[in-house]
Amino acid sequence: MDGISKKIYLELNVPTEEDNRSDQRRILDGLREQGTEAKLSLRVLRKLYSLCEEAEWKVTLSLAWDGQEWHGVDLEAGDTTGAHYGVAVDLGSTTVVARLVDCGTGKVLGETSTFNGQIPYGTDILTRIFHCQEDRGTLEILRKAAVNSITTCVRELEARQQLPENSCIAMTIGGNTTMIHFLLGMDAFCVFHTPYAVHADQPGFLPAKDLELPVKGYVYIYPAKSNYLGGDIISGMVATGIYKKEKINAFFDIGTNGELVLGNRDFLLCGAGAAGPALEGGVVKTGMRAMKGAVDRVKLEDGKLHCHVIGEKTARGICGSGIVDLLAELFLHGWIDIRGILQPEKSRWIVEKDGMLAVNYAPELYFYQSDIEEFIRTKAAAYTMVAIMLRESGIELSELEGFYMAGAFGKHVSKESAIAIGMYPDMDRDRIIHAGNSSLEGAVCALLDRSVAKEVEEILEKMVYIQFATVEDFLNTMVAAQALPHTDLERYPTVKEKLERIREEEKAADIQN
Amino acid sequence: MDGISKKIYLELNVPTEEDNRSDQRRILDGLREQGTEAKLSLRVLRKLYSLCEEAEWKVTLSLAWDGQEWHGVDLEAGDTTGAHYGVAVDLGSTTVVARLVDCGTGKVLGETSTFNGQIPYGTDILTRIFHCQEDRGTLEILRKAAVNSITTCVRELEARQQLPENSCIAMTIGGNTTMIHFLLGMDAFCVFHTPYAVHADQPGFLPAKDLELPVKGYVYIYPAKSNYLGGDIISGMVATGIYKKEKINAFFDIGTNGELVLGNRDFLLCGAGAAGPALEGGVVKTGMRAMKGAVDRVKLEDGKLHCHVIGEKTARGICGSGIVDLLAELFLHGWIDIRGILQPEKSRWIVEKDGMLAVNYAPELYFYQSDIEEFIRTKAAAYTMVAIMLRESGIELSELEGFYMAGAFGKHVSKESAIAIGMYPDMDRDRIIHAGNSSLEGAVCALLDRSVAKEVEEILEKMVYIQFATVEDFLNTMVAAQALPHTDLERYPTVKEKLERIREEEKAADIQN
Repeated sequence: MDGISKKIYLELNVPTEEDNRSDQRRILDGLREQGTEAKLSLRVLRKLYSLCEEAEWKVTLSLAWDGQEWHGVDLEAGDTTGAHYGVAVDLGSTTVVARLVDCGTGKVLGETSTFNGQIPYGTDILTRIFHCQEDRGTLEILRKAAVNSITTCVRELEARQQLPENSCIAMTIGGNTTMIHFLLGMDAFCVFHTPYAVHADQPGFLPAKDLELPVKGYVYIYPAKSNYLGGDIISGMVATGIYKKEKINAFFDIGTNGELVLGNRDFLLCGAGAAGPALEGGVVKTGMRAMKGAVDRVKLEDGKLHCHVIGEKTARGICGSGIVDLLAELFLHGWIDIRGILQPEKSRWIVEKDGMLAVNYAPELYFYQSDIEEFIRTKAAAYTMVAIMLRESGIELSELEGFYMAGAFGKHVSKESAIAIGMYPDMDRDRIIHAGNSSLEGAVCALLDRSVAKEVEEILEKMVYIQFATVEDFLNTMVAAQALPHTDLERYPTVKEKLERIREEEKAADIQN
Repeated sequence: MDGISKKIYLELNVPTEEDNRSDQRRILDGLREQGTEAKLSLRVLRKLYSLCEEAEWKVTLSLAWDGQEWHGVDLEAGDTTGAHYGVAVDLGSTTVVARLVDCGTGKVLGETSTFNGQIPYGTDILTRIFHCQEDRGTLEILRKAAVNSITTCVRELEARQQLPENSCIAMTIGGNTTMIHFLLGMDAFCVFHTPYAVHADQPGFLPAKDLELPVKGYVYIYPAKSNYLGGDIISGMVATGIYKKEKINAFFDIGTNGELVLGNRDFLLCGAGAAGPALEGGVVKTGMRAMKGAVDRVKLEDGKLHCHVIGEKTARGICGSGIVDLLAELFLHGWIDIRGILQPEKSRWIVEKDGMLAVNYAPELYFYQSDIEEFIRTKAAAYTMVAIMLRESGIELSELEGFYMAGAFGKHVSKESAIAIGMYPDMDRDRIIHAGNSSLEGAVCALLDRSVAKEVEEILEKMVYIQFATVEDFLNTMVAAQALPHTDLERYPTVKEKLERIREEEKAADIQN
């Protein structure tokens, strides 16, 4: 492990009149013998007495990297190198996730999450930003909420491992540009407002004390490429390593916004666009987050929808992966047509409800025609970003070694279903990799590998931003992608085949009946 | 000026969609164009909005050097480079002196001083140290007292110049090892206790915030060579520049302790020893500091002592320079003999008082036989240090280009008198340089010249410490120096000559009578 923190055990000579170097010098000389140059912080200077004497000059120094040099940030009696901890954080607008890492071994000791304490000031980012516009005091409230959410996670992780508070030396954070602005106490209106020049995109290493975050040394915050391509995506680059690979890979993080990166060690194209809130359970009438009571899997068999519900028996709504399954099943079995229009003659579960058609997918729960349309717009946006980026770069889908789907959505969604509705491109399933919380994974990488911060600067240099909205036939491409799976079915050979098979099975069943 | 702080005015392009670099990047790019690489502190990041916009992107960044790199520590609207301030401090155990410096021009704008707020916990350093031994809480009280004393000076200087609080970017401090230990919140018992290994001797650049000192960036604290050779002496080295000169010079700071450095650009010998409190008005019964009411000049004419009193008509006591004058006059006119014994037959002003002989030097004020003896011990200690260091190094007095006398004592004392009693060596008066508060002067140098901190490391490397106490015939040398001016009058040719002249004048006067 060659991370952004380290602990060094020193067995020093007891001072004598012949060797009466200062305690400070004695420690710095001891470090130097082990190949480390460092500065000692005031906190360590104050601990020299009486700790060194009491520990008979067998002490462990905790060191934190500030991007340029090492700082001794804590001193403990005896050999405590076995207890070397750090925290990696994904600062999401909805959820804050943190991992406690044993920085000596690289092992993740625990993970926890909490809702972002900013939610009371708006479930979506824009609402929070507008609150700050109305009242500048809100910014400080939002900053503290972010700090408190992270601190809550850290305290929970420390408690689980029975560690004293502030046991960690360093912290790394991946988060989108708005979240990082709030965490630093910076107004974020700039993120969504022309000319989209944000206030700070390279926070780098900042003293934890300045940020009021509960670690001893420095906090590394992933930089952003632009307003929409935040530190969470850069962190994902590091987690997946696509910037180091010879072959071309794609990285796609889709939520309310979609961020896409395509490239290899030689080039990186990137772009971002709005996808709509459908994937995160917004807009859709019975939509909800992937939590207890949410339908997350749907199967249509024997003319009936079978739902899997998270943690409970009774469904309370449907989350992103459930919606994708539902739409795929509806489409494959002809309950909706290629435009997503419900076909009431196909099933008694398709009914008129609140003045429009809806499918009754679970007791008392309906998925409406308008929900379907909303979702199709989202999946079309996702598809369009990928299609345009491939076209603009002249890269064929078949050239991609891997297609990394990041985020919670990517983690839970069925690849087959996502392809069936044309949300994912039709490609080898093995090449579609659900990368999970790659923002968090990348934060762990930055904690354990000091070279990451430098590599990130190279990644940023290499990245070329493509403005989707300015691409000539963006709208045409988008409209073509609003069919299921796509206006041009030839782009979806496996779906075409599947449809044909199902049609034949249905025909056979009809004949049997 | 190439100091440890700077201000850079930036006229930046207003962000557009074509150039929508972040504010942070825009500023860092602007700095780079002017040849400066820096990090921006959280404080600056938070000020970006709305300051940049309001200032139409004409802003001034304040930068502070941390010994390795520049940190942007404040941002102001418009061109404020003309208002570039720093503070230099001499942290004395009795007096804290501070100078406000215009770091753009190098001009000292003002100087002020205050008593060290630690005095209530002991007028001398040892008492303060013992208080900390008895109760560790005292250390924090002493730390805060030092911080408050410095802050008081800074506020006073800011107010005089009508500057807002915390207008200064950087601060530099010279102080002895104990004072710096207290300022950093470190126990100082080590300074006076075997094996004399102090806790920290190279504080270097520390964030002002950590120290709770009222500047925006970093505080540079002069390092110490050893327990007795503190940062005030190293600062004096820088002020006098003797470490850079081709010819050999001596630097002597004498107070309760004496610190002596001898050398040039090739070598530096140093030593320290106790001189006793006599010079600072201690022990001597009517002794006092050089303040209002103190006799600071004495002349013996027509069989009478003529005293000059600071600021008043009535004398309340006598300070160091007064004592030196008094002893010199008493000796030159034979009122005391070569051993310092009062000769009552010589004057009616020599009387028996409180069971011993004393000279009535001013109305109701007496200088006692015991005071004389005490002072002779001090002057002998001072002489001995110089004599031994010269002898050990094989350097003749005549080889010295200059003899720098530092400190308040050096500033006020009469060279003639100090030579007459054998406290200073008998050398060309022009070569004796009263260096004033060289600790403060050196602090100003470190503020205005960034290379000083590096040079100081070389000074420390070069310094060789001579333990006076372990020199073989230290005691013999000391005893020989307890005569006035010295047992060996040949060492004081000008004094010998002066004595002969006075004796002849007296003889002539006797004949006349």
